[in-house]
Amino acid sequence: MSFIAPVSDQRLTLNAVVGIGELEGGPDAEMVDAVLEGAAALAEGEFAPLASIGDTVGARWDNGRVTMPAGFKAAWQSFVEGGWMTLAAHEEHGGQGLPHSMSAALMDNLNAANLGFALCPMLSMGAIEAIAQHGSDELKRDYLPKIVSGEWPATMNLTEPAAGSDVGALKTKAEAVGDGSWRIKGTKIFITYGEHDLSDQIIHLVLARTAGAPEGTRGISLFLVPKLMPDGSANDVRCVSIEHKLGIHASPTCVMSYGDHEGAIGWLVGPELGGMAAMFTMMNNARLNVGLQGVGIAERATQRAVAYALERKQGLRNRLPVPIAEHPDVRRMLLRMRALTMGARALLYYAFGQVDRAARGDGAAALRAEVLTPLAKAWGTDVGCEVASLGIQVHGGMGYIEETGAAQHLRDARIAPIYEGTNGIQAADLVGRKLGLDGGLAFDGLIADVRDETRDARLVALADAVEVAATTLRESAPDDRLAGSYPFLTMTSVMVAGWLVERMARSEGADARTKAATDFFVATIVPEALGLGAAAEAGAALLYEVPAEALA
Amino acid sequence: MSFIAPVSDQRLTLNAVVGIGELEGGPDAEMVDAVLEGAAALAEGEFAPLASIGDTVGARWDNGRVTMPAGFKAAWQSFVEGGWMTLAAHEEHGGQGLPHSMSAALMDNLNAANLGFALCPMLSMGAIEAIAQHGSDELKRDYLPKIVSGEWPATMNLTEPAAGSDVGALKTKAEAVGDGSWRIKGTKIFITYGEHDLSDQIIHLVLARTAGAPEGTRGISLFLVPKLMPDGSANDVRCVSIEHKLGIHASPTCVMSYGDHEGAIGWLVGPELGGMAAMFTMMNNARLNVGLQGVGIAERATQRAVAYALERKQGLRNRLPVPIAEHPDVRRMLLRMRALTMGARALLYYAFGQVDRAARGDGAAALRAEVLTPLAKAWGTDVGCEVASLGIQVHGGMGYIEETGAAQHLRDARIAPIYEGTNGIQAADLVGRKLGLDGGLAFDGLIADVRDETRDARLVALADAVEVAATTLRESAPDDRLAGSYPFLTMTSVMVAGWLVERMARSEGADARTKAATDFFVATIVPEALGLGAAAEAGAALLYEVPAEALA
Repeated sequence: MSFIAPVSDQRLTLNAVVGIGELEGGPDAEMVDAVLEGAAALAEGEFAPLASIGDTVGARWDNGRVTMPAGFKAAWQSFVEGGWMTLAAHEEHGGQGLPHSMSAALMDNLNAANLGFALCPMLSMGAIEAIAQHGSDELKRDYLPKIVSGEWPATMNLTEPAAGSDVGALKTKAEAVGDGSWRIKGTKIFITYGEHDLSDQIIHLVLARTAGAPEGTRGISLFLVPKLMPDGSANDVRCVSIEHKLGIHASPTCVMSYGDHEGAIGWLVGPELGGMAAMFTMMNNARLNVGLQGVGIAERATQRAVAYALERKQGLRNRLPVPIAEHPDVRRMLLRMRALTMGARALLYYAFGQVDRAARGDGAAALRAEVLTPLAKAWGTDVGCEVASLGIQVHGGMGYIEETGAAQHLRDARIAPIYEGTNGIQAADLVGRKLGLDGGLAFDGLIADVRDETRDARLVALADAVEVAATTLRESAPDDRLAGSYPFLTMTSVMVAGWLVERMARSEGADARTKAATDFFVATIVPEALGLGAAAEAGAALLYEVPAEALA
Repeated sequence: MSFIAPVSDQRLTLNAVVGIGELEGGPDAEMVDAVLEGAAALAEGEFAPLASIGDTVGARWDNGRVTMPAGFKAAWQSFVEGGWMTLAAHEEHGGQGLPHSMSAALMDNLNAANLGFALCPMLSMGAIEAIAQHGSDELKRDYLPKIVSGEWPATMNLTEPAAGSDVGALKTKAEAVGDGSWRIKGTKIFITYGEHDLSDQIIHLVLARTAGAPEGTRGISLFLVPKLMPDGSANDVRCVSIEHKLGIHASPTCVMSYGDHEGAIGWLVGPELGGMAAMFTMMNNARLNVGLQGVGIAERATQRAVAYALERKQGLRNRLPVPIAEHPDVRRMLLRMRALTMGARALLYYAFGQVDRAARGDGAAALRAEVLTPLAKAWGTDVGCEVASLGIQVHGGMGYIEETGAAQHLRDARIAPIYEGTNGIQAADLVGRKLGLDGGLAFDGLIADVRDETRDARLVALADAVEVAATTLRESAPDDRLAGSYPFLTMTSVMVAGWLVERMARSEGADARTKAATDFFVATIVPEALGLGAAAEAGAALLYEVPAEALA
C-alpha cells in the first residue's frame, strides 16, 4: 500500500498550532507549501518504496563493513542532492535556516515512509546542533558544511554496556595527544548508523572521559571522531557487529570499537568536561525527533488500516455486505487511530514551534519547550505503538501475516519508547525537573493556557485533574513523585494534545475529518485520561510492599 | 532465562477463585498438587527449552509436508505418553475426567513455556469436545480415543479467504456419497497445525455447506476429515502453504486444500446443518483457551522482566548502585505486569470453573460462563499484549534485541486478540447477546456478586460505573451499543478481575506478593477503568460524522 504524505494535516497543524505565519523570519505560505510538497514527494517517491526491502533484507554486516539494502544509496543521493539535510541548519553552515517545525514536517513524512532509513538524517540533525552550538571554529569549518549537506552522515555515541540510562557511568577514555587532538579508547553499543555504505565518511560524536575527570556526568566530554582522517586514511574505529532487532532492520545498530590499536583520533566539541551540555543539545533535538517517529508510524499505520477496512468486505449492515470500516467497532478503531495521530502530531509540531521561538530569543517559549519535551517524546512514541497495534487488529488475521505490512509498523514503532531516554526517564524528567521549572510557573502556565482557551468541559475537567495531581506530586517525597510520574505524564500529554486539536478544529481551514477526529478525541480519549489521576497520586509505598524478587 | 511454572499462584487461584475443593467429583488437594507439579515439570522440562528454536527455526513447509523444528516430535511423545492430552476428557473416551479448570492450569503453563507448541493440544481439546458432544457413536469409537490420547492431533477448519469473522459466508462444499460419507471440496486458510510431522494421522474438523443448504450460518455442517483413511491411504487433502507470521513461528498456519482430486472423504459431526452448534462447542472452549494464552505469555514476560530488572544495575538510590528493579517507575511496571497477570489468571480460571459447574448441571454457572467468555478471551489476550510490551520496556535497549527473548513474547502474544473471534467480535457478543442473557439477570448477577463481596470503595465505584454503562447500552440502538462495546468490555473485565484478586488476597494461603499485587490492582488499574465509562456510553454518531474514506 503506497504512502501518501498528510500534506493538508501538516499545513493545518503548522498554521493553527505552530503559528508558522507569525514566526519571526519564518517562511511565507508559498514556501511552506513548497517544502511540504517537496518533502511529500521525497518520502513517497524515494523512501517509502524501500520500506519493505529495508525490513526483509535489512542492513548486513560483514567483517566490519555494513551494506545497506539495494536502493538505499541512490535514495540517499537524492536526499542529499535535494538539499533536504540542510533544511533547518543555519545559513552560515550551508543550511537554509528554515524553522525546526518545518524540519518536523519533513521527518514526520520520512518516519512514516521508512523509519529505518529516516534514522540516518535524524542522527545528523542532532550532531549539527551540537557542533554548531558547542564546536570550535575549526570544527565548524572543517566538518559542518558536509554534515549539513548530508555528504557526511553523523552519529551519536553515548551508550556503553554498563552505561545506558545512567550515561554518567561510561568508561570510554580520551587522552590528550598534545596537538589539540585526543586518542579515544572504548566500546560503544546501540550506535545507530555507526557504519554503512551510504557515504565514505561518517562523523562520530563520542562521549568519553578525560584523564583525571571526576566521576559521573560531570566528568564527561564530547569528541568528534571521523571515520576517515583528513588525509583520507582510516581512523582507529571499527564496527564490531550489528544487532538482530525486532524492527527498524534497515537501520544498522552497531557495536563500535574505538582504539583497538593506538586510539581513535578525535577533537573536543565544547570545553573539556562540557560533554553533558553538548549531549543535551543533541538529546533534546533527538527526543523531539523520536517523538515524531511515533507520529510518522501512526500516520502510516492509520492509512494502511483505513485502506484495508475500506477494501475488505465482511458481514452485513442493513442486510447488505459492507466493508469492515462500516462496522462500529472497526470504525471506532480507525477513529482512535486518526485522533491519536492527529493529537500526537499537534503536540510534536507545537513543541518544535516553541523551540523555534526559543531560538528567536523568546524565553517563555524556551521554558515551554522544556516542559513539552518529555511529553512529546514519551506520549508521541506511546501513540506510535498503540496505533500500530490497532492497525494490526483492524486487519484481523491478515494483520499477523508479515507480507501485509501492518506488523512491521508495530515492530518498528516499539523501539521509540526505549531510545533517546526511555519513556520512564522522560516521566522522571517531567516530575523531577520540569514540574518545578521556573518555580513551577512553566508547568502551571501550560495548564492556565489550556483553561483560558478551551470551551469544552471535558478538557477543563482534565486540566483540573492534572492540576490536582501536579499539586500532590510537588508536595510528595521524590519516590512518590516518581511512582506517579508515568500516569501523570500520560494525562498531561492528553490534556495538551486535546487542547491543540480542539484549537485546530476551530481554526480556519479545518476540514470535516479534523472536526470528527477532534470530537472523538475529546469525547473518549480525554475522559479516559481522567482515570489515570489515582495512579498518578498513589505514591510509592504501594510499590515496595514486597521486595522485587517476590514478583518473579 | 528458564521458565518456572507459577504453581503456588495456580493453587491459590484454584482454591480461592475456582473453589476446586467444592467441585462435585473434583480432585482432592493431593491430586490438584500432583497435576500442578506434573504440568510444571512438563512445561519447564519439555516445552520451554524448545521456545527459542520454535521461534528462530519455526515450522518449515516443503511440497505439502511440514517439518517441525528439532526436538518437537520427541517432546510431543513425552506429552502423549504422560497422558496430558487426556486430562479433561471424559473417562468413557479414555480421558481422566478432571475438571476443565485443571486443564486450564496445564495450558497456562504450556502457553507460557512455548505458545507456538501449545496450540497443538489446544486445537485437539476443542475437537474432543465437539466430537464427544455431537459425534455419532461410530465416530466416537473410531476417532475419539486416539485424539484423546494425543496420538492423532486434531484441527479446526473454519476460515476461508472471504469468510473470516463472517463464518456464514464460507463456500466449502460437501456432497453425500451415499454410504454415509461425504466428499469435501474447498480451501481453508489460517488452519493451525493443519499439517506437521508430530504424528502420521491428523484429524480435521471442517465446516462445509451441503447441497441445497440455506445461505449463511444456518446452512453449515461440520465434518470429520482424517488425513489418512481407515485403510491407511491418503485422503484428498493437502497443505498448500504455510504463512510467514509476526510470531508463533513454531505453529504451522496452513492453507488447506480439500478435494483437489475426487474430494476429501469425511463424515458428519452432528446432524446436517448442525455445524454452528458444533462449532460453538469448539469455539467456546477455544475462546477460553486463547484467553489463557494471554495469561501464559504475561506470566512468562513478567518472570523474564523481573529477573532482568534484578540483575541489571543502573543508576543510584541513596548514592549506591542498585538493580533497576529498585527504581520506582521500573517497579511500577513490574507490579503492573504481575497484577495484570494475576487478574487475568483469576478471570480465566474462574470462567473455566463455571464451565465445570455447568457441566455438573448448574444452570446459573452455565449462564455465568457465557457472560464471562467474551471478557476472558478479549481482556485476557489484551493483558498478554500489554504485559509483553511492558516486558520489552523493562529491558530497555536489550528488550529490542531478539536474542534477549522479550520481543518474542510480544510477537507471539499479538495473535491472541485476533483469532477465535477477534476481540471486537467478543465485545459485540458481550453487548449483543450476553448483556441481555436471561433477561439481563445473568449480567446483573455478576455486578451484584461484586458488590456483595467486595469491601473496597474503588471496586464498588467501578461496579456502579459498569451498571450505569450497562443500563445506557441496553437502552441504546444497536450501533450505539456496538460503538461502546470495547471500552465496556474492558471496564467490566477489570471489575471482575479486581473482585477475584481481592478475594484471593483475603483468602487463607494468600502470600505477601498476592496482597501487594492486589493492592496495586485496586489502587491503580481499577480507577483507570473508570475512565472508560464515557467512551462506553458515547454512542455511534461520533463514529459516522465523516465517511471512513476521510480518515485515510
